[in-house]
Amino acid sequence: MICVGTELLEDRLNTNVIYIGEKLKSIGLNLARQITVADDKKETEEVLCQAISRSDIVITTGGLGPTFDDLTRETVAKVLKKKLVFKREVMEAIAMWFAVRDLKMPKDNERQAYIIKGARVIPNKVGTAPGMMLQGREQRAEGRKQRTRATMILLPGPPRELRPMMEGVVLPYLKEKYEQRIAKSCVLHICGLTESEVAEKIKPIIETERELTGGEVKFAILAHFSVIDLKIEVSGINELLINETLLAIQREFYDCLGERIYGKDEQTLEGVVGQLLGSKRKTLGVAESCTGGLIGHKITNIAGSSIYFKGSIVAYSNQAKIKILGVAEKVLSKYGAVSSQVVLQMAGGARRIAGADFGLATTGIAGPGGATKTKPVGLVYIALTSDKGNVSREFKFTGTRLEIKEKVSSTALNLLHKHLLKNCETAD
Amino acid sequence: MICVGTELLEDRLNTNVIYIGEKLKSIGLNLARQITVADDKKETEEVLCQAISRSDIVITTGGLGPTFDDLTRETVAKVLKKKLVFKREVMEAIAMWFAVRDLKMPKDNERQAYIIKGARVIPNKVGTAPGMMLQGREQRAEGRKQRTRATMILLPGPPRELRPMMEGVVLPYLKEKYEQRIAKSCVLHICGLTESEVAEKIKPIIETERELTGGEVKFAILAHFSVIDLKIEVSGINELLINETLLAIQREFYDCLGERIYGKDEQTLEGVVGQLLGSKRKTLGVAESCTGGLIGHKITNIAGSSIYFKGSIVAYSNQAKIKILGVAEKVLSKYGAVSSQVVLQMAGGARRIAGADFGLATTGIAGPGGATKTKPVGLVYIALTSDKGNVSREFKFTGTRLEIKEKVSSTALNLLHKHLLKNCETAD
Repeated sequence: MICVGTELLEDRLNTNVIYIGEKLKSIGLNLARQITVADDKKETEEVLCQAISRSDIVITTGGLGPTFDDLTRETVAKVLKKKLVFKREVMEAIAMWFAVRDLKMPKDNERQAYIIKGARVIPNKVGTAPGMMLQGREQRAEGRKQRTRATMILLPGPPRELRPMMEGVVLPYLKEKYEQRIAKSCVLHICGLTESEVAEKIKPIIETERELTGGEVKFAILAHFSVIDLKIEVSGINELLINETLLAIQREFYDCLGERIYGKDEQTLEGVVGQLLGSKRKTLGVAESCTGGLIGHKITNIAGSSIYFKGSIVAYSNQAKIKILGVAEKVLSKYGAVSSQVVLQMAGGARRIAGADFGLATTGIAGPGGATKTKPVGLVYIALTSDKGNVSREFKFTGTRLEIKEKVSSTALNLLHKHLLKNCETAD
Repeated sequence: MICVGTELLEDRLNTNVIYIGEKLKSIGLNLARQITVADDKKETEEVLCQAISRSDIVITTGGLGPTFDDLTRETVAKVLKKKLVFKREVMEAIAMWFAVRDLKMPKDNERQAYIIKGARVIPNKVGTAPGMMLQGREQRAEGRKQRTRATMILLPGPPRELRPMMEGVVLPYLKEKYEQRIAKSCVLHICGLTESEVAEKIKPIIETERELTGGEVKFAILAHFSVIDLKIEVSGINELLINETLLAIQREFYDCLGERIYGKDEQTLEGVVGQLLGSKRKTLGVAESCTGGLIGHKITNIAGSSIYFKGSIVAYSNQAKIKILGVAEKVLSKYGAVSSQVVLQMAGGARRIAGADFGLATTGIAGPGGATKTKPVGLVYIALTSDKGNVSREFKFTGTRLEIKEKVSSTALNLLHKHLLKNCETAD
């Protein structure tokens, strides 16, 4: 995979790599190498030549735009010794893109209607840059198939343009052409344990992994603030065996880590909490101090959250804590805003005002300022209230202001998650 | 730059590339190519050999951990034909890392005390993996300097470990050794115009750019949801001339785009708004519906925001809009929650309840559900109130639920920003 774009070396996070890597993996293809080069003809040419001679499939991203610094089209054509040809139907599609938006097409966009000779055009439903695909050439020499040219796929850089092309055209094509060995993976999400605690606990499982049949098994542990991802990947030829192995290993991890595993694959803590709240027909009100709105933001990232999420009160000032949430002024001045007493009153206030079944609250010192001798940066209280009672917990987090906000929001959602699970067991 | 780690091809966004690219640029060095390879000995070896023969400096990230799949140490040693030697002082530092955290050191971590012979150890203040640096060798052949080996820098993968090493040791070293040609850049942040509107407006400036002296000038436009970044980069030998050129171009852009430019470089919309509120001693209360807490989250990402930010009320349900914000039930049922009338009442409620000078409110349909015939996904109302009056605006945004939330939050902050600027002109 070759990513063309100076901005990817200096300014802009490249999200296409893991997207394409994962999609290829889903059809058993392995992204072996990814290279980023600047918008520079010579660099791009050199990298393209190497990639073509080494790989079965070469995917480029970026450099298909209308402006002078978009060089991928020309460079690929040059490397493959092919001409660029003007395609009227592509030009019309681009003109249409502008027309339906009531915009005048800039002259520069005509460049995008030039297609490498022999390439299949991949229509762009979102933007103006068409993708291209050139099938690899294989020759039979002495009865054996031999590759003389890689399959070449050119995609635009913006993820929202690239993704529909990848899923609609490229993947189905590659799947049909190359699928043989397949790989399946799953990721378990864990909250409430550190990375090394997870590693320690699962060590026996990983060590016996070699005795399992059904394919090659790989593990990886990745930490994202207070969430730990445990990835399991099984590859082989027999899909049935692979699925069985994957399930067996997952079962072992569930036995070992229990409710610390809050979800799988695409599931998020806020999504799982939302599902539990929804299925139990319970509602939530939140009061946030140090998280400043992040818990509400996460919860409302889930479509349909309005069913169980009543609202959040970001009570950043003491005055707001008193006036809106009804925290007692005496308690606030006696114990301070960052205290178990105040967070419990905040949670109670959020629950009452929102008219919700659960009240969840956070207060703490996200830093870098605001610390005192007895209350250091990272000291946080989280509380949960319901008609069954209250609970508050003290935590000491480390990291930057943003990291601490992130950790507090995950930990608060995890507190609610554990409570919802326990309630499941006793009530249902 | 060689990034080692299977997860970077499948799961994890690689944030080290733009960090290192930018840092190198700041001392006039150019990140020409970046390669990602899996945790695989053969792949890593091949890529390392190529990079060493081609580059003056090779930086690797990742693969310095304690476990079996961390292969960078061994592979670099092999490629450079050097031995790994056990360093007692490194071992002691690692043991200390565990000791101060009251943790038992796993046996595996001993591997991290093996250092490539001749390498300078870069201490890791955050984690256990030490970095390494091997100076390039230069020979004089026929009076000319000739490189026989690249300078080799090995850094751990996690950003919080890599960054202090880069800034504390690597950059000062490289700066002293290589600095000659320097490059300076700045980024102007724009809100309230589309990418193509910005491009159109600045075209005349870019076209006369070649007539400027003082170095080579490059431009780039990048869109992040509703924020457009305009990057200007000037490189050359004479720092004074470069600074002057950079300033002159900036001045032209300010003349052309005016208050659409809300900030520069590291500045964020929420940071600039915060500075303005702080300097005017004004306070803010927010009422969020479709943004769900994102505005509060952004504002509170700024350290010290508690001075001007009173709080945000995430009134996700109609009930919360009525009960907490005091939106009139009649207005809500007559016009619907997504209306100019309701957003104005929300802003007024937020201002009143928070006891703030400004009230900012959002309501809209973030999708994918919730649309009606007359109110499509993306329809959003934003309102701002103060003692000087009220304003509400209607917008139609496109994108996913998260993209719409992001666009609404930027647009709302921009509305406040423009208001604060105008007030500046008349009041001060």
